[in-house]
Amino acid sequence: MTTPEQQAQLEKLMRHALSLASHGPITGGNPQVGCVLVDADGQIVAEGWHHGAGTPHAEVDALTKLGAGATASGVAGIAAGLTAVVTLEPCNHHGRTGPCAQALLDAGVSRVVYAVPDPGPHSAGGAERLRAGGVEVIAGIAQADAEEFLHSWLTAARLQRPHVTVKWASTLDGRAAAADGTSQWITGTAARQHVHEQRARADAIVVGTGTVLADDPSLTARGDAGELLEWQPQPVVLGRREIPADAQLRQHPEKLRHIDGSDLNAALSELFEAGIRRVFVEGGPTIASAFIAAGLADELLIYLAPKLLGGPKVALGELGVMTMAEAKDLSITELRPLGNDVLIVARPATETGA
Amino acid sequence: MTTPEQQAQLEKLMRHALSLASHGPITGGNPQVGCVLVDADGQIVAEGWHHGAGTPHAEVDALTKLGAGATASGVAGIAAGLTAVVTLEPCNHHGRTGPCAQALLDAGVSRVVYAVPDPGPHSAGGAERLRAGGVEVIAGIAQADAEEFLHSWLTAARLQRPHVTVKWASTLDGRAAAADGTSQWITGTAARQHVHEQRARADAIVVGTGTVLADDPSLTARGDAGELLEWQPQPVVLGRREIPADAQLRQHPEKLRHIDGSDLNAALSELFEAGIRRVFVEGGPTIASAFIAAGLADELLIYLAPKLLGGPKVALGELGVMTMAEAKDLSITELRPLGNDVLIVARPATETGA
Repeated sequence: MTTPEQQAQLEKLMRHALSLASHGPITGGNPQVGCVLVDADGQIVAEGWHHGAGTPHAEVDALTKLGAGATASGVAGIAAGLTAVVTLEPCNHHGRTGPCAQALLDAGVSRVVYAVPDPGPHSAGGAERLRAGGVEVIAGIAQADAEEFLHSWLTAARLQRPHVTVKWASTLDGRAAAADGTSQWITGTAARQHVHEQRARADAIVVGTGTVLADDPSLTARGDAGELLEWQPQPVVLGRREIPADAQLRQHPEKLRHIDGSDLNAALSELFEAGIRRVFVEGGPTIASAFIAAGLADELLIYLAPKLLGGPKVALGELGVMTMAEAKDLSITELRPLGNDVLIVARPATETGA
Repeated sequence: MTTPEQQAQLEKLMRHALSLASHGPITGGNPQVGCVLVDADGQIVAEGWHHGAGTPHAEVDALTKLGAGATASGVAGIAAGLTAVVTLEPCNHHGRTGPCAQALLDAGVSRVVYAVPDPGPHSAGGAERLRAGGVEVIAGIAQADAEEFLHSWLTAARLQRPHVTVKWASTLDGRAAAADGTSQWITGTAARQHVHEQRARADAIVVGTGTVLADDPSLTARGDAGELLEWQPQPVVLGRREIPADAQLRQHPEKLRHIDGSDLNAALSELFEAGIRRVFVEGGPTIASAFIAAGLADELLIYLAPKLLGGPKVALGELGVMTMAEAKDLSITELRPLGNDVLIVARPATETGA
C-alpha cells in the first residue's frame, strides 16, 4: 500500500520520466519511454530513455548510468534496493535487445513502478515476470498522462495497424480548392510549416494517385528555409493509376511505396508489417474521405483558412453518412490560431468518451 | 495643444464614457453614446448616456444631472467652464430631441472632446457649430476603441444600409445538414443560446422563404429557459413564395415583414428606411450565400460543430468565386470554444486591412 504522499511522489517521478521519454524519437516504430532509478529516500540516482530502435530500452539506459563502466547485464545487483519508475511496463521480449524485466531483476531492483501496461502481444508479461522474481510492482501511476503521451503508439499497438492522422486544409466553408481547381495557397506560411513538422513526426505519408497526378507533391518534411528536416517519412501512394516517371515523389529521400489497390485495411496491414506505426494521410479529398468513412482516422488535423470559396471543390466528399444521427462525432483536443489560419485537432468522440 | 499627460487623461475619461455608453440599448436605430462632464481639475461632475430612441442624447442626459431640477435647455450656463467628453461627435440635428451641440453651447461648456465624428448626413456638423460658438473642440480621442464599439452602427450610417451579420452553423467539413436533410441539432445548447443572444442584438432577422417552408422557425430571441427575451428583432422573410398562414413566424411578437423579391440591395434599403440598422441573416444556405456573394456581409458568425457529415448539403453554396485569387478573404476577430462547438467571428479582410 502506498500513502497519498508516496502516491504524489511517485506521480511526480513518473512525470519526470515522461519528460525524459520525450527526448527519444517519436518515429521509427518503438515507443518513447523514460525511466528513473530512485533510492529508498526517493532521490534520483540515474535517468534513462530510449533513443530509438536498435538502442537500449529506457530501463537499461538508466541502469548503465549507475556506475563507471557498469552495464545492466554485466553487473548483477548494481541496482539493489532501488525503485525503477518507468513510463511503460518493462518488456518481456527478446527483440534486438534482451527483455527489460529480466535486466531489472538481474540488477536487483526491489520495486518497479510503471504508468501504462505494455499492449504488445509479444512484449507484455513483464510485470508478471518481475513479481515472480520477488519484485514489488505498482502499475497505473500517472496513467492518463502517459496514455496521452503515447497515444499514437498505443493506438497502433492495440489495433495492430498504424495510427492514422488525416490532414486537410480548407476554407471556413469547407472548400479545398476554387471552382477552377486552384488551391495554392489556401493556408498561410505558419500552417504550411506546421504541416512539415507533422510530416516529420510520421513514419509514412499517404496520398492518392489523384493527388500525385494533379499536384506532383514532393512530400518531404522541410524547415522554414526549405531545408530537409532530419527525419523523412516514407512516401506512400495508394491507387491503381501509374505514378509518372518524373514525379517529384521519386526524388524523395525515402523509397517510394506504391500500394496498387483501394483496400485501406490491407494497405494499413502492409504498412504495419513494414514497421510503420504513424501514418499521415495528406489526401486529397477522395483518400481523406475514404479513411474517415472507413472509421480508420484516429486523429484529424484541420487547417481552416479565413476565406470563403463556395463552389464544388469540398475538402471532404462522401462519408457514407445518410442522416444526422450517423454523423461522425468528434472531440476537439486542440483549437488555436496558427498565423491567420485556425488549427483544429480532433479525434473520434467514442475514443475519448465525449 | 494637449500634453501627453492630458492626452492620457482624456483617453481614460473617454474609455469611461464608452463604458457608460454600453448601458444603452444596441438595438433600435440610435447609437450607444456616453458622456462625462469634468471640471478644470479633471474631476467627473456628471455622467450620462443615451437610453434609446426618443430619450435625451448622452450629452443632455449628463447635463440634466448637474443640479437638482436642472434641465439642459432650461438652465443656461449650468456647465460653465466644464469639459464634455463624449464618445460620438455631438449632433447638429433636430430630431425627436434638439441638437446636442446647441445644448452644450447653451450650458456654457468650454471644451468638447469626442472620439468619432458623426457620419450621419443629417446630424454631422456639431463640431463646427461648437467651434463657431467659441468652444474648444478636440476630436479623435480613443477613436479606435470607439470605432470598434460602434462598429455596426457606424457601418450602417456610412453605407446608408443596415449592418449585416450572416450566421450559419456547420460541421467541420462545412455541411449544414445530412444527406437526407436532417439538421437538428448540428450544434449544442451553448451555441444555440448564443444565437438567441445575437438575435436580441439585431433589429431584424432575415430568412428566405425556403427556410420558412422547410423549418417553420419561430425566429424569436429566447433565454435558456425558453422565455422570450426583452428585445425581439423583427422577422423578415425574403423571396417570392407564399408564407403559410400557419407559419410560426406569424406568432412572432414583432410584425412579420415579407419582402417579395430577390434584390438584396433593395431589401436592405427598405429595411434601412424603416429604421433597421442591424440585420441578422439566419439563412438558409441560399440567402447566406447570396449576401456573401453580393459583398453585403459585414460580419460572419460561424458555429462549427465537432462532427463530419460529408455529402451534398453544404452550408454555403455558390459565391461566384471562380479561382483562388477571387476567394473572399476574411479577418477573424474572435475564435473560441462554445460548449463542444467552435465560434468564429470574422469580417471581410478589406475592412480591417488584413
